[in-house]
Amino acid sequence: MPVTGSTWREPAPVYFYGGMRTQVAIIGAGPAGLLLSHLLGAAGVESVVLETRSQEYVLARIRAGILEDTSVRLLESVGLADRLRRESMPHRGIYLQWPGERHHLDFVDLVGRGIHVYGQTDLTRDLVDARERAGQALVYEVTGTAPHDIDTDRPSVTYVDRDGNPGRVEADVVVGCDGSFGPSRQAIPEDRRRTWERAYPYAWLGVLADVAPSTDELIYARHPDGFAMHSMRSDTVSRLYLQVPPGEDIAAWSDDRIWTALGTRLDVDGWTLTPGPITEKSVLPMRAAVTGPMRHGRLFLAGDAAHIVPPTGAKGLNLAIADVAVLAPAVTALLRGDERLAAEYATTAARRVWRCQHFSWWMTTMLHTGDDPFDEQVQLAQLRWVVESEAGARGLAENYTGLTLDGA
Amino acid sequence: MPVTGSTWREPAPVYFYGGMRTQVAIIGAGPAGLLLSHLLGAAGVESVVLETRSQEYVLARIRAGILEDTSVRLLESVGLADRLRRESMPHRGIYLQWPGERHHLDFVDLVGRGIHVYGQTDLTRDLVDARERAGQALVYEVTGTAPHDIDTDRPSVTYVDRDGNPGRVEADVVVGCDGSFGPSRQAIPEDRRRTWERAYPYAWLGVLADVAPSTDELIYARHPDGFAMHSMRSDTVSRLYLQVPPGEDIAAWSDDRIWTALGTRLDVDGWTLTPGPITEKSVLPMRAAVTGPMRHGRLFLAGDAAHIVPPTGAKGLNLAIADVAVLAPAVTALLRGDERLAAEYATTAARRVWRCQHFSWWMTTMLHTGDDPFDEQVQLAQLRWVVESEAGARGLAENYTGLTLDGA
Repeated sequence: MPVTGSTWREPAPVYFYGGMRTQVAIIGAGPAGLLLSHLLGAAGVESVVLETRSQEYVLARIRAGILEDTSVRLLESVGLADRLRRESMPHRGIYLQWPGERHHLDFVDLVGRGIHVYGQTDLTRDLVDARERAGQALVYEVTGTAPHDIDTDRPSVTYVDRDGNPGRVEADVVVGCDGSFGPSRQAIPEDRRRTWERAYPYAWLGVLADVAPSTDELIYARHPDGFAMHSMRSDTVSRLYLQVPPGEDIAAWSDDRIWTALGTRLDVDGWTLTPGPITEKSVLPMRAAVTGPMRHGRLFLAGDAAHIVPPTGAKGLNLAIADVAVLAPAVTALLRGDERLAAEYATTAARRVWRCQHFSWWMTTMLHTGDDPFDEQVQLAQLRWVVESEAGARGLAENYTGLTLDGA
Repeated sequence: MPVTGSTWREPAPVYFYGGMRTQVAIIGAGPAGLLLSHLLGAAGVESVVLETRSQEYVLARIRAGILEDTSVRLLESVGLADRLRRESMPHRGIYLQWPGERHHLDFVDLVGRGIHVYGQTDLTRDLVDARERAGQALVYEVTGTAPHDIDTDRPSVTYVDRDGNPGRVEADVVVGCDGSFGPSRQAIPEDRRRTWERAYPYAWLGVLADVAPSTDELIYARHPDGFAMHSMRSDTVSRLYLQVPPGEDIAAWSDDRIWTALGTRLDVDGWTLTPGPITEKSVLPMRAAVTGPMRHGRLFLAGDAAHIVPPTGAKGLNLAIADVAVLAPAVTALLRGDERLAAEYATTAARRVWRCQHFSWWMTTMLHTGDDPFDEQVQLAQLRWVVESEAGARGLAENYTGLTLDGA
């Protein structure tokens, strides 16, 4: 395991205290950070992963559940898809719906590839298992994480561990995989950093229910009452969403009211929605943000630390995977003295990010209702075009199933 | 020439005074009204065309200049494309541009059909010539035009002729081709009529210039200063547009300022814009409107009387042609006692109208600048996708060159 630019190092136990040295300090143990440490490990590069939350929290939080074909193939190529291949639900496409009409878009027919339903919690579990098997240093429940000296080739990250002891990781490279509220993005000097934001004027009320899905593939429905979506986590667990106003009080939504609204918005002739016990419900804001550049000196950003997409296009998790898939070889080459890929990372990643922002914006604005009757007709005309035009359907399919990793 | 539902009729001179009877009273002698009278005439149906403006005014007004392949084929099929085929400029596609990049979209390669540059003034001249050769009753400079009794099978239109004499056309059917400010739309009872509107937050400053076009095909350019477009009318006449704020004072735009702005917004390496004498300039509002239903009783609406599109997608004239192409056989069948096509007209036409509204909205919102930096990045991502993705490019091409007449 070659170590460059390093004069002193410790072996890598699961928990350590005080100072330590590694090649790559990764902030954040979500899918981006864990997968990055895995990809780096496979390339012979050492890393330490620091995480604010507990492992239990990270493993339990409910997030996305759709993997692009591109993401699955990447995970497969690095030995992370055994359980995924066994337990995930491969889907050929999705349903697009508006009152009176439900249309199937068959992505496999349209672009030769489909998607996989596999909860982010499951993927995170697979990643944690793989990293623990590899002896990865995963430090949970740290506070006050802060990158330093990112303009030099000897950056570091300081933090306070869960026992209150100060810690410091010295590294050659720091990667911020710490989400939209983490410290990494803030570490880029303000005069070099730019953020683009969009607050969408709606939110999603999302529920998990212990009931077999009433559909074989996801249903995206535009209804005058608001968008609704029927997704799933497994053969026995359904995931459903309702468009609600931003800041909606969850207390206003009894389980009965939720099932009634879902039944109305998802209704088509000859189809029935089967309700069941709701085990989790929450209101998710619909927002978008991009921070650039995704590299400053020896600090790189990946995943939610650099971009938030609204969930409509199922892009958040896949974009995080794509970021680190591009970043891992760039960092590996950088540590070997080849700057080229690292210099291109911010540009390469940003192209894909904006591709996905556009797609997410498109799906979101096509499917959510507002109060403008002209917009409503434009939305319906667009939905009809997407299902009737091969070009329209392929445009959706190629974006939904994931563009290739070079952004093309 | 069979006449149904008619007990009394006069021969059809070019101008007549007082009462007259015909099969179809057409209000408006723009392309929609003239083409409809031509199509009806070819089917053996008599019509009278009433027009508020003078013939000179109608023939001189500057309007659209792009004909879809679908429109050209229709005109050809009814003997109206002789001069068009000789004098129009067939284009394979368009250029899409943003700072630093100009990309050609080859519609012929993408969807097997292109477009034709041919001024609306030229088409109107061809239509007037054809109608005059056929002895069509064309009554210009009427005022106070008003449809009556459209809920009965004996509707009529009253007006005052240019000499101040009241006139009345009794007909079996009335067709409003009288644009967005005409009386036809208003004749549909308010409680049966609905209008959808959109005022876009920009306008176009359009100029005609006596200079050979600096481009072989149209250029659509998104620039931080605003949208710009380079179109043409002939080998020696250029048509150019600049995005300006709505209500912009034309006096603020000297010819020099116009050419400088065009040069900046259309700039790419290795290309030069050749300025020339500006012969006409005006500020065009960017708005959209749809009125429905497009049929009420024996009154039918066609063209701008039922819908206004922003000019970005070049759809206004083509939509008018498509309307009357669907309407003429419907009216002909109705006069022969077959209600079926007439009953479907409003639905068939509205589908195409909203398809084109969506396309025009899409082109408009993708290319015009506002003050939201997030929107700017989404626009650029979308433009890149359109030129890089075959599905994206085909989606634009199939809409720009015109869907088939059944709306598919």
